[in-house]
Amino acid sequence: MKILVIGASGTVGQGIVNELSRDNQVIRVGKTRGDYKVDLTSEESVRTLFAQTGNVDAVISATGGVHFGPLSEMTSEQFNSGLQDKLLGQVRLVLIGKEFVNPGGSFTLTTGILAQQPIRTGVNATAVNTALEGFVFAAANELSGLRINAVSPTVLTEALDSYGPFFPGFESAPASRVALAYRRSVDGVETGKVYRVW
Amino acid sequence: MKILVIGASGTVGQGIVNELSRDNQVIRVGKTRGDYKVDLTSEESVRTLFAQTGNVDAVISATGGVHFGPLSEMTSEQFNSGLQDKLLGQVRLVLIGKEFVNPGGSFTLTTGILAQQPIRTGVNATAVNTALEGFVFAAANELSGLRINAVSPTVLTEALDSYGPFFPGFESAPASRVALAYRRSVDGVETGKVYRVW
Repeated sequence: MKILVIGASGTVGQGIVNELSRDNQVIRVGKTRGDYKVDLTSEESVRTLFAQTGNVDAVISATGGVHFGPLSEMTSEQFNSGLQDKLLGQVRLVLIGKEFVNPGGSFTLTTGILAQQPIRTGVNATAVNTALEGFVFAAANELSGLRINAVSPTVLTEALDSYGPFFPGFESAPASRVALAYRRSVDGVETGKVYRVW
Repeated sequence: MKILVIGASGTVGQGIVNELSRDNQVIRVGKTRGDYKVDLTSEESVRTLFAQTGNVDAVISATGGVHFGPLSEMTSEQFNSGLQDKLLGQVRLVLIGKEFVNPGGSFTLTTGILAQQPIRTGVNATAVNTALEGFVFAAANELSGLRINAVSPTVLTEALDSYGPFFPGFESAPASRVALAYRRSVDGVETGKVYRVW
């Protein structure tokens, strides 16, 4: 299969590339690095990406920023930044990309454990992740001939040094284990599912 | 209690006003009608509203538009319109309004059955509603001294003439019954909950 991995140089992205490149043609895409570059907040950038890659069999997104900060100080603009980046960015990838995925192909987006397990300063992340899970759940009914799923990782073992203090008592998972969930989405039969790695 | 009802002239809003005005001071707010007017997509408009009303004991929002249309034709801009209106509009009401709600007071937002029960053309509504439920769930942990809940109505009996065909086989609920859930949120003890009327 020809598989597009957006966010390929991130920790999760590297795990996905390692897992899937053994038996697939993986195209690495990033904001600043990779075989191709893309900015998911830009319509034109996403259209240019697919014009460059041509049709693919699977699109994986492991990217997207949200705002972290206490609710007491949060502005609407900060809340909107996560909506525009991790949420609308991945939705845009599907809305445009669905014309470039071969029949029987799939999308796999990335949400996260904060959808169901809130942390301090994580209100925007929880809202963005739940929205993505709702999008996947509903879009699966209207993407005729294509599948769409999401992977929801817990905090990554590789990221514990920087993110560990925000996830007190949370069990981590290594990127290699998280990557299996993307494999399951791409090679499996299901659609509209969220694969939780936690 | 002094209760602000945003969307007071809508079908749900009228039900809420009927239910709560029996034993409370209800301030009716709408986009074009009411004791005060507000546009939840505008920071300035929301700030002006609270400057006019002063402190309140409860804020209820029963308003917000989303995009309805088939996923095959949906643009990112259309998807974003629901994010900016029903989602960020209600979030903005909380982010600004929390300074104007008396200790022990509450916010009650409105999501909808499409969060868990998708319909054709409802992808944006599902994503917006799930995001609101995530927001309420997470924000409840950080709104010290205040409570926040949401009400998720099914299709309204009063709206069946226009919306019925989009909800095939769904059981409707009259606005008077939906209004009880807002009563429960305002007068109850819980926070971070979604009261489903379906």
